[in-house]
Amino acid sequence: MEEILMTPGPVKILPRILEAMSKPVKYHRGSEFAALYSDIVEMLKEIFQTENDIFVLSGSGTCAMEAAIGNIVRTDDRVLCISNGKFGERFIEIASKYSNAVMPLRFEWGLPVAVNHVAGAIDYFEPDVVTMVHNETSTGVLNPAVDIGALVKNANAIFVLDCITSIGGDDVPVDNIGADIAIVGSQKCIGAPPGLSALSISEEAWKRITANERRKPYYMDLISYKKSFEKLQTPYTPALPLFSALHEALRIVREEGLHHRILRHRTLARAVREAASRMNLQLFPKRAYSNTVTAINLPHGITEDEMKKEMRRRGIIIVGGQDKVKGKIFRIATMGNVSADDVIYTINALEDVLISRGLLHENERGVGVKTAERIIEL
Amino acid sequence: MEEILMTPGPVKILPRILEAMSKPVKYHRGSEFAALYSDIVEMLKEIFQTENDIFVLSGSGTCAMEAAIGNIVRTDDRVLCISNGKFGERFIEIASKYSNAVMPLRFEWGLPVAVNHVAGAIDYFEPDVVTMVHNETSTGVLNPAVDIGALVKNANAIFVLDCITSIGGDDVPVDNIGADIAIVGSQKCIGAPPGLSALSISEEAWKRITANERRKPYYMDLISYKKSFEKLQTPYTPALPLFSALHEALRIVREEGLHHRILRHRTLARAVREAASRMNLQLFPKRAYSNTVTAINLPHGITEDEMKKEMRRRGIIIVGGQDKVKGKIFRIATMGNVSADDVIYTINALEDVLISRGLLHENERGVGVKTAERIIEL
Repeated sequence: MEEILMTPGPVKILPRILEAMSKPVKYHRGSEFAALYSDIVEMLKEIFQTENDIFVLSGSGTCAMEAAIGNIVRTDDRVLCISNGKFGERFIEIASKYSNAVMPLRFEWGLPVAVNHVAGAIDYFEPDVVTMVHNETSTGVLNPAVDIGALVKNANAIFVLDCITSIGGDDVPVDNIGADIAIVGSQKCIGAPPGLSALSISEEAWKRITANERRKPYYMDLISYKKSFEKLQTPYTPALPLFSALHEALRIVREEGLHHRILRHRTLARAVREAASRMNLQLFPKRAYSNTVTAINLPHGITEDEMKKEMRRRGIIIVGGQDKVKGKIFRIATMGNVSADDVIYTINALEDVLISRGLLHENERGVGVKTAERIIEL
Repeated sequence: MEEILMTPGPVKILPRILEAMSKPVKYHRGSEFAALYSDIVEMLKEIFQTENDIFVLSGSGTCAMEAAIGNIVRTDDRVLCISNGKFGERFIEIASKYSNAVMPLRFEWGLPVAVNHVAGAIDYFEPDVVTMVHNETSTGVLNPAVDIGALVKNANAIFVLDCITSIGGDDVPVDNIGADIAIVGSQKCIGAPPGLSALSISEEAWKRITANERRKPYYMDLISYKKSFEKLQTPYTPALPLFSALHEALRIVREEGLHHRILRHRTLARAVREAASRMNLQLFPKRAYSNTVTAINLPHGITEDEMKKEMRRRGIIIVGGQDKVKGKIFRIATMGNVSADDVIYTINALEDVLISRGLLHENERGVGVKTAERIIEL
């Protein structure tokens, strides 16, 4: 039995992508790689909805987060890190390595960040740089990027937005938001294998990067990336097979169409949410639900490990909670090229687990699946 | 016609490795990945000839170089960077981002580093950390790692050794050398695709890393790698398909046997050197020839670009020179799973290019190939 991967990255990889990866461009200095890289960047611009420069790093999303902070932030820069989950905390950790003036602005996990509160903090703190996670994968919450972007731009600060698990699956109009740096990971909504990340860089961000005389990271030095990009190269040897895979994944995104892809993601996430509710489960977020990952409170009577194991016995790989919500929630991702069938099988397995534990009555069998099917067929 | 890749990384990828990569481990938290990672590290220890900890980074060799320096070096640490090529220079650049007391010790490109001179510099400078490149890919020179290692250990300093293009193809007894950190790239002598690097860390190095309170890089924080390794995981999502490919590449290394693999590398490099000499070409290094990459002076009458293009027209991809030897040399790598036939085809093509340019007489046709064949058949 082929297991179904419903984790928030890595995600299911379609055969076309595996096939492309198995015939990688051989060499990274030359016209073949140049054409591939150029194509990738053009397709990324479509899903970032941006005119800004975009580069692809041979490293995970965290690598791109550090590239953003490490290039932009000077020791004395005031960095406001908005956080309502594990990845918001990660920005605080990274920023603290590059600035002595990091102000964490924390919100309850499971709630979206509060725009008014952020407005007040920006007013008071007068930050040079503001960081936020768009889609907080750890809690299944979608933060109000457009509203926060407007506040940051109004304060003439630089806005670094982690869109690692939203771009390619949800609507992320980077230029409209005013995100000076936006970041995506290959192995999330784009549906490629893990190992690459990409980031967009605005004119404003370039000004700060260029003016930043302090010691920037070396492997992630964005000025080197910019110089190499003039020849459609990367400063260091890129992970060639992953570039071929990313290229094919982006072609699939383009074939589906961004609009349809976003609708599909929203529908599948809603199917999971409503099916879960119908099965008497409670969603972890109180509102502002992510369109790519659903966090559900663990019901009494089953531990996180048991839930993961029981689901896996039924062929479905899901994840639990991280850090402060470890043991309290489980999460079902509907990212990338996940199909309606994948979701139905997942809900079916979840129903079965709940019934086997006495958490759902036997004569309720099918209610989750029917709910999901109804939403998917709408 | 399938082109033959004779570049110093990336290298030819055998079908078995592409096949393994196209069926990657799906998820990075779980027993399947744990077994893969554990196996990879065991096999790496064999070719590093070390008992030290080894970690695999999802990033190129440069990423591992920065990981080494960024974790070890404190702002006031005295860092002696021995350099006789482009990659020696890279250590100077990276070290200068982390220390205010970097002492470059430069030797002529094309010559090995001089042990006595290094001894004097260590005496005078009393470094905390010494960096060196074992196999200087930019010039085709092999540096005396054992001798330098003894000097560094005698001075109680930390020895960071870039073995990116030697481990897996040449004899690199990391523990005998006394390399506290040794680094390899996936896409060189190991014969895997680009995108991963690995480094070994000695007890002495760990002491310094642990005592280093300054701001270390985040993505490359080796303490995070160590903690995650206890669960056979990586701190951030690894480039899963590349791990599967690396695993298969290392299995091939083990099947060939390190001893045989080293002999094969030495033989193929010697075949290139002697064939080149027989065709009236001059080697760029004066001695201490690399066993994995051969640098040859461009003869008068052909430019670097012409040489590369003429070779490529004949199905062989080679590279020119970098930085200060750009336009002066061309390089033929014999790394990884390059075969005797690959070398013969390469020499044959080179002969043809030289004859077509009047740089070798028509009635000398075959001398290079015969020389190479004789050495390979020995």
